Amino acid sequence: MSSAAQSPETERVVIIGSGPAGWTAAVYAARANLQPLCLTGVARSDPAPVLPGGQLMLTTEVENYPGFPAGITGPELMEAFQKQAERFGTRVLEEEVERCDFTTRPFTLRTDTGRVVRTYSVILATGATANWLGLENELKLARTGGGVSACAVCDGALPIYRGAQLGVVGGGDTAMEEATYLTKFAGTVHVIHRRDSFRASKTMQDRLLKAANVKVHWNKAVVDVVGDERLQSVTLEDTQTRQRSSLALGGLFIAIGHQPATRFLAGSGITLDAKGYIALGSRNSATNIEGVFAAGDVADAVYRQAITAAGMGCQAALDCERWLAAGGVH
Amino acid sequence: MSSAAQSPETERVVIIGSGPAGWTAAVYAARANLQPLCLTGVARSDPAPVLPGGQLMLTTEVENYPGFPAGITGPELMEAFQKQAERFGTRVLEEEVERCDFTTRPFTLRTDTGRVVRTYSVILATGATANWLGLENELKLARTGGGVSACAVCDGALPIYRGAQLGVVGGGDTAMEEATYLTKFAGTVHVIHRRDSFRASKTMQDRLLKAANVKVHWNKAVVDVVGDERLQSVTLEDTQTRQRSSLALGGLFIAIGHQPATRFLAGSGITLDAKGYIALGSRNSATNIEGVFAAGDVADAVYRQAITAAGMGCQAALDCERWLAAGGVH
Repeated sequence: MSSAAQSPETERVVIIGSGPAGWTAAVYAARANLQPLCLTGVARSDPAPVLPGGQLMLTTEVENYPGFPAGITGPELMEAFQKQAERFGTRVLEEEVERCDFTTRPFTLRTDTGRVVRTYSVILATGATANWLGLENELKLARTGGGVSACAVCDGALPIYRGAQLGVVGGGDTAMEEATYLTKFAGTVHVIHRRDSFRASKTMQDRLLKAANVKVHWNKAVVDVVGDERLQSVTLEDTQTRQRSSLALGGLFIAIGHQPATRFLAGSGITLDAKGYIALGSRNSATNIEGVFAAGDVADAVYRQAITAAGMGCQAALDCERWLAAGGVH
Repeated sequence: MSSAAQSPETERVVIIGSGPAGWTAAVYAARANLQPLCLTGVARSDPAPVLPGGQLMLTTEVENYPGFPAGITGPELMEAFQKQAERFGTRVLEEEVERCDFTTRPFTLRTDTGRVVRTYSVILATGATANWLGLENELKLARTGGGVSACAVCDGALPIYRGAQLGVVGGGDTAMEEATYLTKFAGTVHVIHRRDSFRASKTMQDRLLKAANVKVHWNKAVVDVVGDERLQSVTLEDTQTRQRSSLALGGLFIAIGHQPATRFLAGSGITLDAKGYIALGSRNSATNIEGVFAAGDVADAVYRQAITAAGMGCQAALDCERWLAAGGVH
């Protein structure tokens, strides 16, 4: 490392983000004596609701994070992650990174408070947010486990959905996949789509439509989500005739895409893939810029699970630690 | 699926192995309603000690599996994983798969009891075992957290190793990496090697040898591990003069390689990589045989952590589920 390594202001590693990937990277980096600084982000509601702790902060029961056979709530799990990271010496600032400069070394990060952080390496773990319809009631019922969800793999197996009438909103590959997954549990899966054809690949459409318990509602938009503690029904509006109708549902899965949180990377030189996610090495966490690593949903359009994000966070910390040990600064 | 799908004897998915990767695959496969069968393996001591539950069964305190800020023992963690997999409908047989036939579909697996299991898909999660020196006391002290370990990243940060005299046995890349990692914690790192030069790459050697607190003991073999509850010292034998000496140590890290558990795959057609690990797709869990997926240390020579193995198990289950949903049988 250059002499600047001795400067107290230059961090060895900064972790941006505070979901399963960020905290796991912090646990491993802290145990490797790197004294990581974690910039958690701040609570925001635009364009989608975001909290430090990530998407699990909007989740009631997590049944599929291994190690908790009785389940655990999302916020409890994230609190445990943070505690563990802090136990080994992670320093935490609840600030939002707004700009990254990776063109000079050490790297420079600027946060919402005007703070400037200099660091030899960075782990990007800012996650992604599900797109929502933006209807009243939708997020409330999602947060309280009241029958609205943006993740079939996460929530489809819950008892409340068994044998129920389940709606899936969307027409892309993800919507087909979520709907296909739900056919195992649902009485009927109602796929609700604004247009008269799916954007999804033919293969994915065929896979879905061969299931016996699928009904497609073409040219329909969900304009209201009805239910107090639990979802009762949705109001559909025909996108051509504007005629409204009610559809009774026990569950509603929103599958209209995700937005990886990469806006703060604009102009940073980090390469994104065709879908806007951070592009990684074949089986590691390296981005196109040496010393910058990424983990979790911001770099994963496929699996998007707490446990996969955590595994990626560990990889990023180990990759980063080995890179720093190898000399780090170029 | 072909008509054989209706046959009660044909499984949809069989998971082979019962460490973090296997149980996580089971949790996800079970929640996807695939009613997975998990073949856990049986306890063996040859060539290395192996237990259902994997390497964590030989571990006392696990401090780096995220979600447990106070730590958890390896066996407790694996019990929780298994319970969670069973809660969602995983069936478990404590049997060892001895042969796989992937040339005809459904696939055929044969276990140590003579049982023949037919299945449409398989997730290989048999793990790997660390190589040990084979000395009395070595494994006892490893199992009880008494100062012997085969994983610096897992155990190096434990308080008992801070500022201590730490031995690392080996001369390959992994030994260099483990020793470099331990320089952050140790008073002195003593690298003990049988020969007069390292097999490791020049880069890895340089990285290690530039640390101030490293001492290399060339041409020395560890022939005895001394200590009752806690490691006190090792006896070294000069491999050329046969002269013996004692070296006081607070910790001993064995870094003489790992053995992925792939013997049962002999003749199965599964492609292994240059190091003998199962070769996977770029960022997924697919092996070279459609319908056979792999996860965890049996397919990972790089990270080898409980959390990375668990993440891979989740990926394998989701990949497998999607493959079955797409038609599965070819």
